[in-house]
Order: sequence, then C-alpha cells, then structure tokens
Amino acid sequence: MSLQLVIGNKNYSSWSMRPWVLMRQLGIVFDERKLRFDFAEGSDFRRQVAAVSPAGLVPVLLDDGFAVWDTLAITEYLAERFPQAGVWPADARQRARARSLCAEMHGGFGALRRHCAMNIEAALPDVGERLWAEQPALQRDVARLEAMWAEALDASGGPFLFGEFGAADAFYAPVCTRLVSYALPVSDATRAYVRRVLAAPGVAAWIADALAEADFIADEEPYRSSR
Amino acid sequence: MSLQLVIGNKNYSSWSMRPWVLMRQLGIVFDERKLRFDFAEGSDFRRQVAAVSPAGLVPVLLDDGFAVWDTLAITEYLAERFPQAGVWPADARQRARARSLCAEMHGGFGALRRHCAMNIEAALPDVGERLWAEQPALQRDVARLEAMWAEALDASGGPFLFGEFGAADAFYAPVCTRLVSYALPVSDATRAYVRRVLAAPGVAAWIADALAEADFIADEEPYRSSR
Repeated sequence: MSLQLVIGNKNYSSWSMRPWVLMRQLGIVFDERKLRFDFAEGSDFRRQVAAVSPAGLVPVLLDDGFAVWDTLAITEYLAERFPQAGVWPADARQRARARSLCAEMHGGFGALRRHCAMNIEAALPDVGERLWAEQPALQRDVARLEAMWAEALDASGGPFLFGEFGAADAFYAPVCTRLVSYALPVSDATRAYVRRVLAAPGVAAWIADALAEADFIADEEPYRSSR
Repeated sequence: MSLQLVIGNKNYSSWSMRPWVLMRQLGIVFDERKLRFDFAEGSDFRRQVAAVSPAGLVPVLLDDGFAVWDTLAITEYLAERFPQAGVWPADARQRARARSLCAEMHGGFGALRRHCAMNIEAALPDVGERLWAEQPALQRDVARLEAMWAEALDASGGPFLFGEFGAADAFYAPVCTRLVSYALPVSDATRAYVRRVLAAPGVAAWIADALAEADFIADEEPYRSSR
C-alpha cells in the first residue's frame, strides 16, 4: 500500500493541513504532493487536482491510485485502514463526540473561516483587533470554540481534546494557528491548549514547512498587498 | 436503547431530513421530536435545541439522552450501532467513495444551498428559471451533481448510488426535492434517479409529513410572502 496526500500551500491550505498533521502525528507513512494554489480557470493547479478528484479540491488521499477526497472521508478511511493508530477515541461515545466536533468544524464556524483565513507566517494582530470589534459572528464562533474545547478537555482530562492527539485535534489545528495569527482574545485555558497543539510534532512539522514556503498569494490575503 | 431524533420543520429542514429518511428507510426504530424553526434570540426553538446540543443546531440524535449532533456524526453513529443495516456499502472502497460524496454535500454545493433552499410543498419553476439564468455557480453545482450521480450509478448499476439505498442517497434526498421544486434543467438519467429517491418509502414518508405541515416561515422563503 502506498499513500499519497495531494495538498495545497502549507501556509494557506487549512483543509490540507488536517489529514497531513493527523498522519504525521500518528506515524502513518505517506508521500506528499504539494500543488501551488491557483484557482484561475484552466490553471495547472485545477488541471492536476481534476486529474485525481472530480470534486476538484484539495486535499485528496491516493491509496495506490484510489482517490479519497474531503477531509472527513479521508479521516474515516485512515481510521479503517489503521485501526490501531488512534484516529478516533476507543470508547464509542467519546468517538461519537469526536466526530460531532469534527463535523461541526467541517460545516460550521463560517465567520472564523471567512474573516480569518489561515496564514501561518503572518502576524496580523491589527486585522484581528478590527475584525473582533466589527464582527459579532466571529466573537460567537470563538465563544463556541472555547466552550467546546473546555468541555472536551474537562471530560477527557487532556492534554488533547479526547486525551491523546487524534482527529479532533487535527481538525482544530488550523484554528489554533488562526487564534495566534490574528491574536484573538481567548482564555488562558484556550491559550494553553493552542500551545500544546502547535507543539505537537506533526503540527510543528507542518508549521515549519509553511514558514519555509516564502510564497504570497494575493487572493488569500485581502488585508495586505505583499509579505 | 431508545433513539430520539430532534428535527426542525419537515418542509424546510434539509439537514433534519437526511438522518430521518435514512433511519426510516433502513428500518431503524426511533422517536421523532419536531421543533418549529425560530432562529430569533431566546426563542423556544433555540432554548430546546440548546438544552440537548451545545452546537445549537438540528438534527440531534439522542441515544438514551446521549447527544450526537451533525448529520455526518449521526450517520457514523448509526453505522456503528446497526452494522447490518446498510448505512454504508460493505466494500471498503465503495464505502470510502460514499463517504466522499456525503462529505462533499456536507461542506459544498454552496450556490445550490444558498439559492434553492429546500421547500418541499412549493412549486417554484419561475424562481428556478431566473436563478438558472443569473447564477453560473448554481449551474456548476448542478453539473457536478449530475456527473457525480452518473459516475456512482454507472459503477454500482443502481438503482441507488451504491446499489441499495444508503447514507449517500439520504444525503442527496433533499437535493432531489430541490431539483423538482425549482424545476432545474437536468438530464433524463438524473430525473430518473430523482424519481427513485422520492419514491423510496422512507423519503416518501418524510415528504407526506412535510406536505401536511401547512406552515409558513418567511425567513425560509425570500421569494414569496405567503403560501
């Protein structure tokens, strides 16, 4: 079996980050194929993604050429392929809860995703301060995040949402980078969880690669014109 | 074990429809608790949903009081609880593909969801015609739908996306009602699949209940002022 993960820019592609850090953190071996973001009609990015996935989006997991797309389906595929890896909690109800949290991230947090696009190498406290003042929906998203994390950490005892690092932490890892990049005001407990996630080896490895990219894509950064 | 599914209006709540028709179609016994949509701050709807799920959205599945929220997590929970029910295809790669299609629905088809809100009892061909002319993103969503369904039906041989009716069909059942309500132009093969889905007993039961509701919620119907 040979696994390849097709991803976008590490600095920007929050959806690519999720399965990548999950696999790296859990010791699942895979090759990476990185494509530079370019959403223009007929771009090389679009052609290469379309060649492997009809949905036309990254990430895509290729298992000996068989394509699994969308982070949630990739996560379930990994859980089935590597049942001992700890993708989900072993307890059925904890597993259900972890899936609820991942699905909530997958379909929700619209204001956070829209206003605070992932941008790992950037320090944008002024942008964050303005957004915080102007966007009550962003404040609501962060309040929900904080309540969700506090409840899960309280129930599991930590250090990660369901004890050991798993899919739920991987799904919220890009959010952790956003809280830092935009310096959004959160509790000490939230900050401590963010620090633990960012220090996890799989997450730290992605961040190191993102910082080394030195790329700039204007469409991803409406708030500035260059790095 | 006692299962209860908390849902919104049957005429409007496309996310509620998915697990409901899946369970009904697969013979999984459950109680229904229907709450009338009202997203105003402090509404009875909001209070009752918040009492069972911190995410504050329907549907919520309660298993002897244990809450599982978001359709994808509910679907996985049902697949684990009822492994013989046929929630997912038995073949691992077909199962992965079915999950990719469900995840794609869960996070995508933004134009279709935004412009063509589910409204089972309505006939809105004029609204559909205008949207079709004005919204290229809607046309792209429908083209992707048609290609996805054609590929799955071709691979499985039908009559449903992966052979027998399963989670993927349940996830696209609300889309089938939209194609009819808005009379969007689709191929004969797509129309035939839509007819099969709408005639499946679990789907037909939901539609019958939706037609019997005789409710009108203005926020759900920006294109008209009454039924």
